[in-house]
Amino acid sequence: MNPEIENKIVARGQEFFKSIAGEAPSIFSKGHWTGKVMDWAMKNEDFKVQLFRFVDVLPYLNTGESLQRHIEEYFAGNDCEIPAVLKWGAEKSGLFGGLAAKVMGKAIRGNIEGMAKQFIIGENSKEAMKSLRKLRKDGFAFVVDFLGEATVSEIEAQAYHDGYMEILDAMAAEQHKWDCLGKSSNGQDWGHAPKVNVAVKLSAFYSQAKPQDIPGSVAGMLTRIVPIYRKIKAMGGFMCIDMEQLKYKEMTIELFKQLRTMDEFKDYPHLGIVLQSYLRDTENDLDGLLSWARANSLPISIRLVKGAYWDFETVMAKQCGWDVPVWTQKPESDICYERCARKILENHDICHFACASHNIRTFSYVMETARELNVPDSRYEFQVLYGMAEPVRKGLKNVAGRVRLYCPYGDLLPGMAYLVRRLLENTANESFLRQSFAEGKELERLLENPALTLKREQECSPVTHPAKRPSYGNLPPFKNYQLIDFTIPEVRAAFPKAIAEARKSKGKTYPLYINGKDVATQDRMTSTNPADPDEVLGQVCQAGRAEIDMAIEAADKAFLSWRDMPAEKRAEYLVKAAAIARRRIYDLCAVQVLEVGKQWDQAYNDVGEAIDFLEYYAREMVRLGTPRRMGFEPGEHNHLFYQAKGVAAVIAPWNFPLAISVGMASAAIVAGNPVIYKPAGPSSIVGYGLVEIFREAGLPEGVFNFCPGRSSVMGDYLIEHPKVSLIAFTGSMEVGLRIQEKAAKVQPGQAQCKRVIAEMGGKNAIIVDDDADLDEAVLGVLYSAFGFQGQKCSACSRVIVVEPIYERFIERLAEAAKSVKIGPAEDPANYMGPVVGPAQQKDILKYIDIAKQEGEVLVMREVPQKGCYVPMTIVAGIRPEHRIAQEEIFGPVLAVMKAKDFDQAIEWANASRFALTGGVYSRSPRHLEQARREFRVGNLYLNRNCVGALVERQPFGGFKMSGVGSKAGGPDYLLQFLDPRVVTENTMRRGFTPIEDDDNWVC
Amino acid sequence: MNPEIENKIVARGQEFFKSIAGEAPSIFSKGHWTGKVMDWAMKNEDFKVQLFRFVDVLPYLNTGESLQRHIEEYFAGNDCEIPAVLKWGAEKSGLFGGLAAKVMGKAIRGNIEGMAKQFIIGENSKEAMKSLRKLRKDGFAFVVDFLGEATVSEIEAQAYHDGYMEILDAMAAEQHKWDCLGKSSNGQDWGHAPKVNVAVKLSAFYSQAKPQDIPGSVAGMLTRIVPIYRKIKAMGGFMCIDMEQLKYKEMTIELFKQLRTMDEFKDYPHLGIVLQSYLRDTENDLDGLLSWARANSLPISIRLVKGAYWDFETVMAKQCGWDVPVWTQKPESDICYERCARKILENHDICHFACASHNIRTFSYVMETARELNVPDSRYEFQVLYGMAEPVRKGLKNVAGRVRLYCPYGDLLPGMAYLVRRLLENTANESFLRQSFAEGKELERLLENPALTLKREQECSPVTHPAKRPSYGNLPPFKNYQLIDFTIPEVRAAFPKAIAEARKSKGKTYPLYINGKDVATQDRMTSTNPADPDEVLGQVCQAGRAEIDMAIEAADKAFLSWRDMPAEKRAEYLVKAAAIARRRIYDLCAVQVLEVGKQWDQAYNDVGEAIDFLEYYAREMVRLGTPRRMGFEPGEHNHLFYQAKGVAAVIAPWNFPLAISVGMASAAIVAGNPVIYKPAGPSSIVGYGLVEIFREAGLPEGVFNFCPGRSSVMGDYLIEHPKVSLIAFTGSMEVGLRIQEKAAKVQPGQAQCKRVIAEMGGKNAIIVDDDADLDEAVLGVLYSAFGFQGQKCSACSRVIVVEPIYERFIERLAEAAKSVKIGPAEDPANYMGPVVGPAQQKDILKYIDIAKQEGEVLVMREVPQKGCYVPMTIVAGIRPEHRIAQEEIFGPVLAVMKAKDFDQAIEWANASRFALTGGVYSRSPRHLEQARREFRVGNLYLNRNCVGALVERQPFGGFKMSGVGSKAGGPDYLLQFLDPRVVTENTMRRGFTPIEDDDNWVC
Repeated sequence: MNPEIENKIVARGQEFFKSIAGEAPSIFSKGHWTGKVMDWAMKNEDFKVQLFRFVDVLPYLNTGESLQRHIEEYFAGNDCEIPAVLKWGAEKSGLFGGLAAKVMGKAIRGNIEGMAKQFIIGENSKEAMKSLRKLRKDGFAFVVDFLGEATVSEIEAQAYHDGYMEILDAMAAEQHKWDCLGKSSNGQDWGHAPKVNVAVKLSAFYSQAKPQDIPGSVAGMLTRIVPIYRKIKAMGGFMCIDMEQLKYKEMTIELFKQLRTMDEFKDYPHLGIVLQSYLRDTENDLDGLLSWARANSLPISIRLVKGAYWDFETVMAKQCGWDVPVWTQKPESDICYERCARKILENHDICHFACASHNIRTFSYVMETARELNVPDSRYEFQVLYGMAEPVRKGLKNVAGRVRLYCPYGDLLPGMAYLVRRLLENTANESFLRQSFAEGKELERLLENPALTLKREQECSPVTHPAKRPSYGNLPPFKNYQLIDFTIPEVRAAFPKAIAEARKSKGKTYPLYINGKDVATQDRMTSTNPADPDEVLGQVCQAGRAEIDMAIEAADKAFLSWRDMPAEKRAEYLVKAAAIARRRIYDLCAVQVLEVGKQWDQAYNDVGEAIDFLEYYAREMVRLGTPRRMGFEPGEHNHLFYQAKGVAAVIAPWNFPLAISVGMASAAIVAGNPVIYKPAGPSSIVGYGLVEIFREAGLPEGVFNFCPGRSSVMGDYLIEHPKVSLIAFTGSMEVGLRIQEKAAKVQPGQAQCKRVIAEMGGKNAIIVDDDADLDEAVLGVLYSAFGFQGQKCSACSRVIVVEPIYERFIERLAEAAKSVKIGPAEDPANYMGPVVGPAQQKDILKYIDIAKQEGEVLVMREVPQKGCYVPMTIVAGIRPEHRIAQEEIFGPVLAVMKAKDFDQAIEWANASRFALTGGVYSRSPRHLEQARREFRVGNLYLNRNCVGALVERQPFGGFKMSGVGSKAGGPDYLLQFLDPRVVTENTMRRGFTPIEDDDNWVC
Repeated sequence: MNPEIENKIVARGQEFFKSIAGEAPSIFSKGHWTGKVMDWAMKNEDFKVQLFRFVDVLPYLNTGESLQRHIEEYFAGNDCEIPAVLKWGAEKSGLFGGLAAKVMGKAIRGNIEGMAKQFIIGENSKEAMKSLRKLRKDGFAFVVDFLGEATVSEIEAQAYHDGYMEILDAMAAEQHKWDCLGKSSNGQDWGHAPKVNVAVKLSAFYSQAKPQDIPGSVAGMLTRIVPIYRKIKAMGGFMCIDMEQLKYKEMTIELFKQLRTMDEFKDYPHLGIVLQSYLRDTENDLDGLLSWARANSLPISIRLVKGAYWDFETVMAKQCGWDVPVWTQKPESDICYERCARKILENHDICHFACASHNIRTFSYVMETARELNVPDSRYEFQVLYGMAEPVRKGLKNVAGRVRLYCPYGDLLPGMAYLVRRLLENTANESFLRQSFAEGKELERLLENPALTLKREQECSPVTHPAKRPSYGNLPPFKNYQLIDFTIPEVRAAFPKAIAEARKSKGKTYPLYINGKDVATQDRMTSTNPADPDEVLGQVCQAGRAEIDMAIEAADKAFLSWRDMPAEKRAEYLVKAAAIARRRIYDLCAVQVLEVGKQWDQAYNDVGEAIDFLEYYAREMVRLGTPRRMGFEPGEHNHLFYQAKGVAAVIAPWNFPLAISVGMASAAIVAGNPVIYKPAGPSSIVGYGLVEIFREAGLPEGVFNFCPGRSSVMGDYLIEHPKVSLIAFTGSMEVGLRIQEKAAKVQPGQAQCKRVIAEMGGKNAIIVDDDADLDEAVLGVLYSAFGFQGQKCSACSRVIVVEPIYERFIERLAEAAKSVKIGPAEDPANYMGPVVGPAQQKDILKYIDIAKQEGEVLVMREVPQKGCYVPMTIVAGIRPEHRIAQEEIFGPVLAVMKAKDFDQAIEWANASRFALTGGVYSRSPRHLEQARREFRVGNLYLNRNCVGALVERQPFGGFKMSGVGSKAGGPDYLLQFLDPRVVTENTMRRGFTPIEDDDNWVC
């Protein structure tokens, strides 16, 4: 820290503040509704949440009734009174005496829309052009941003492209009429800057962008970006590529580079990119870009911002188990900003700098640094958001001259989303604007070097929120295995490599595994790649009754000593197995990609879930294995604990071939029950993965036995065997019920009533309410219905849409469905692949025929001829009585049902013999509450997709004909594998008893 | 508090101490083994516990092997080293260089026996006489106490009687040779006290004494006490009736009064009784005795003690849920002692006072008070225990002259028990002797007025041990309903009254109860009293299929709203029902006494358990009804909660006709499942009690339906009904397995896989190890096998006795069995009554025939001709393969098996298809630990009977063919009646999410 320049920065900042003394951004002006409401929101966190959520939903409230209902639901407290602050504007404006709800609703809507308009230059290009003219007259340059909803389909991407073309046309037509800003003789502002300056968000230009497919994503986006940039170049304008969420960062930089080096553009310097100083990685990215520019001798432009998705990135990282990618303390971002700014300024010969901020300290830093480094004015400018921090932009214009306003325009709907971001920014505790203008923090602090601020803050011990977690002996708390992070290049590279490696094992024969030894049989089953049935993956030995007898004998022999091993010891094996699975995760994924057609992420999720089961059940067993004192009376010790039941048959499905297999088997094993594991036929090679893992983990002989086989040969035999004490099954309802019935009959020689843990089918519905956020609902329904080809018991197979939003929703949904790519799972570009096998293909095709008869086909995607593909199908006009609404299809077939209102939607959702998962997209607090109570399924998801339950966080399983009411990955699951025991000891002898610390003793 | 006398007391106490300065009781003398060990025990609580327990078991260790093994088990730490302090004596005595275990064992045994001998005047009457002679020579009077084991049979009571007769004869022959103590010319000590003075413990003279039958108990004890007292009178001696545990207090006072007023004794004043100042009630008892003496003009004698069963009484009260009957702070007992002493001294004209204590403050108090009240020397004396506090007795003799030593004699076995009590007394933190002689507390404190001590102690906040209990919303923590306390006269009086009242309802017709209404049917069943089948109790309407349909329809109609009622509300109904049952407890008991032949206490336990179930499940449902957040990631709320399954069929047994019925029904109900309740035929009228309770509690219509009926008519129909979603059954294995099989078949129209909660039979074993405390084992086995005629699934039906103790055990057991009374349950004198009905009677008689063939009959008690009686049967020589060892008999038939060692005993105990309860009597820490691990039953009881599991403290239920591994009254029970649900809400909207306090957020 150079004290000299530091002093100058502070002095300049003080000067700046002085120049705007007494002024405040309109948003904080308490004389108006907005300021009043903001003030209240900053004092009252609950109100702030409700307000911002209400702003978000507002554009969907198309009727007075809907508007009033939501106002009530969001704001009425226990006494059903809307807070005075909300009414304040309305009352003050004298709109009403006896305040009618309708009038109030109108007033509130008007006020909020007014608030939005502060930040947006217009709802369409005409309004926008008008505003731009005015801004320029006031001496400000602009950069125009066209707001849009999330782009869920190609048709939407195209519309977004067209919107840009429209405003570009308008500007092209008009720019010559605009006076240049500053002193200029070359038709450019300040003598060097194009008048037309446009910002673009890449994700909006291509609906299929995803980090696991960067080349495809970049190519997709380029198709629509190139024509736009071409037009901009034609009019001599400037284009800046905005930075969005982290997952788009790499493709954004990649696209920037490709675009910048295209023949037609490489000599045209007016292309910018944005970097966000809140990302821990940003300095590296900056270094990369600068070297790239220098290496290619291509001047570039960088706009540096703090970043607008801090909450999102942090929450996502926490939810996914990733390292938090952003700086978690505000001064860290500021420090990073200053460091990057200095670096850009140092490279001003190759890099133009747009300093975007509202922080006066930052501006002062940049100005003083530029002066120190003798950076010419033409090499840097300042940017401020339109509608934000008016005093700052004014002061800045006075000091620096070159101020550009970031000017969004567009519909109210995306406008409100934009408004929420701006409100958040203004009201965050760490907001410079809030601190400066709402809280009047001392100048000294506001202008302080952020390194000092950080040091000071770190010295005050931070308030931590340690998660409340159950204790599990010596094991650290359970933590879900991280979800896949395709932003990491090594992760993306690992898949093709592992798949190629897996292909080397083609043709291998997979033996049974009994009593710790491989056992080969003559009867074999061929396993093939569903995307290419000609690709034989291997031969799998099939167990007959003799092998089942062998396996049961081995398990029974292993039982006593395994049962009696301390729970902590058994748990250790699972922890070891988890470590093995983590180490081998890509190999395990690759087999799934090839054998069952799982997409990369789907396969990774499956293996991750298997790891979670191992880690979670290990801990659960430690918890349950610790005897628990019951009652605390002196002289009496009662301990409740649990013991294994006996030999377990684990009968697994092919759809989560590793996760569910490992889940059921590891639960049985850690509880002390040796396992006979029968994988599903189509996923037998994946199933062999359990042999590899448990063998390496060193499980004693006979504790885990691998017995693939034909159900017709050994299914009933296994289930009815008198030595089998428990059966863990996941699969179809028909098979599940049959197992329950067979198992309930006690066989000669049977020692124990058999326990059947059965997870069966689903016919899961997602309800789309009339105020649902369609950006999310469309993608959520699509993923729930067609992820892994809909072959999940949790998959959405009915979407129940409330009438008012029906048309909008299904149009977007159908277009989204039409936009995705279909093909082999091993290509990450593909959204959907083949179903698991020819038998399943046939069944699903039959249902597609039924669907055609019962409803109206909205989407039926063509699919490759070769391979077990079935068309992605969406059929509308389905009613509860239809077969398509009742029978489990287990494939990519989605029934669309139009309900007259939310009540009917709930009723229909429940009108199934299944009760597994469900979903609701709604922004009505009352409807969400109603769904919580009345949408009766094992796993209900509000405002997200209905698949991908995580161990511990979403214990999984349903009831009715979906299962026996167990919950895999939940705290009650292991109990099913155990018999409880209680030992009571009378500790009193001869009237004398030791008194324990926890006795309920006399004082 | 009179300061003048207070000063005198302290001065006298100081004088007393001065007179014995430098002396210490031998037990604290650290130069000897005992003192060393005592010192270590007082410093180390664990060692003290082990030492006292070892002392207790020592007389059973008849072989060197057994002795060494126990020394190791009790004292060897992790490094298998016996503490030096134990070896110390042995080493010092130079017994060994390389210490052989055998030699050490011998030395330890010798040391402990030596310790015992300090407190006991001899092992037989000859030795005793010799000691008495010596004592008298030393100037001390005596009171002789003949130690005995607990008296478990009449033959033992007679032997105890005979023992007294023997020493009395010896003393009669010798007393004329003894010089009188003090100055005396009338042949009495000190001129007024008989030389022969004997203490008796009444409970030892009659094996069937019990507080619910005070007249019978007193009569039984008198038969043997009168001849003894007659002999004492004949020799001019004195008899003092010792006070034992509280449960004997009332009969002891009653016997004292009866004996004192008998024609042959009323003019003979030398009869004393003991009062214990640690009992809160003692002042009342003293007042009662004094008024009684005065009213009858009969002089009496009272020995006042502090009391020797403080730990026992406190622990029992805590375990039974009674008010603690003793003062919980030591000074309170001291205060009470002084108050009572003063009162006795004030009444010295009618009451002679024996002041028994070791507390110098107490002696000083008594002496000063006697002086103040001018009490003649002949009206009070001092008593000290033999072997205790030698300096005190010496000082006392110097000061007061009249000192009597309490002199126990008898076998080592009861001697060790006596030793434990003495060691406890010496080593208690509050012990005056410990404080005076081991800790050297300041005189000021030792002589302090206990009222001041109490005040000081209360001012220091006491360390409380609040019991750790789960929280249950607004309900107070769960507490078992108090067990019956027959020491309360109103409790005893309530039974005959309630039974008479119940008889008034004879001949009543009991309707079904469906949808909140009585429903009469034509088909009726007659319910009779099993003790007198001619006594018809009522007619019970029987449900047919039509009524089952009605009931299921009603339940199904009630389901939705009942399920959706908040858990707290449903719980309130149970709490209400519990209050009703508490209010009506004696009426509910009376019906059981008459209809199923439950003894008073058995009936009370049953109703108490019903109350516990109601209170416990209410709380459990509140606990489970509170949604539980799963995972703590920000932006995501996961809540796990539970919902009802549907209509429940509750099929109950007759043996715990209210408890199990209420347990299963209330669990179903509070979980939200309406109930069709089918009571067992023989207990239908008891079952109707549920109607009365739930109707009064105001359960909504259809939630509880009462459908008694014939299984052949409606059993399968109910079970197979598609609308029945869960079945809670308790009963025989055959029926239970049938239900499971039928229920597993899904019926057309069935919405849910049926859940069967089945508790079935048992073939429970108690193991008696070779070091078992037979006093407890005999009574525990007897009660476990024959309580309620053995008609409990938990009842002991096999006793497996380890060879070395076999003869001793079965002899005592057989004699005990022969001593109990058999007859109608309504007479509290009877230990065993009739079995529940003629069918059961027939079945059991069949098994008795088999028993005769397979084994050797040890006991077969004659029983009344009329009524459903079967002989109480004990058959020996049974081996695991015998039917009597394998089949559940459900009646008063006990198989005795002789195992060669503990391992074989465990093996045999487990060699059953059942696994319900079990018991072990052993004092081997290693065997107890082994049993904990290897004796595999649902409920194992160590060193107590194996019946009477309490809700929460002993969650009840077994596995193998005993049940499906549920545990009634435990924390997992309600889960079976519920389906889990998880609701996941994505709380992030537009990248913004409220952060919760318990979120796993960044710092």
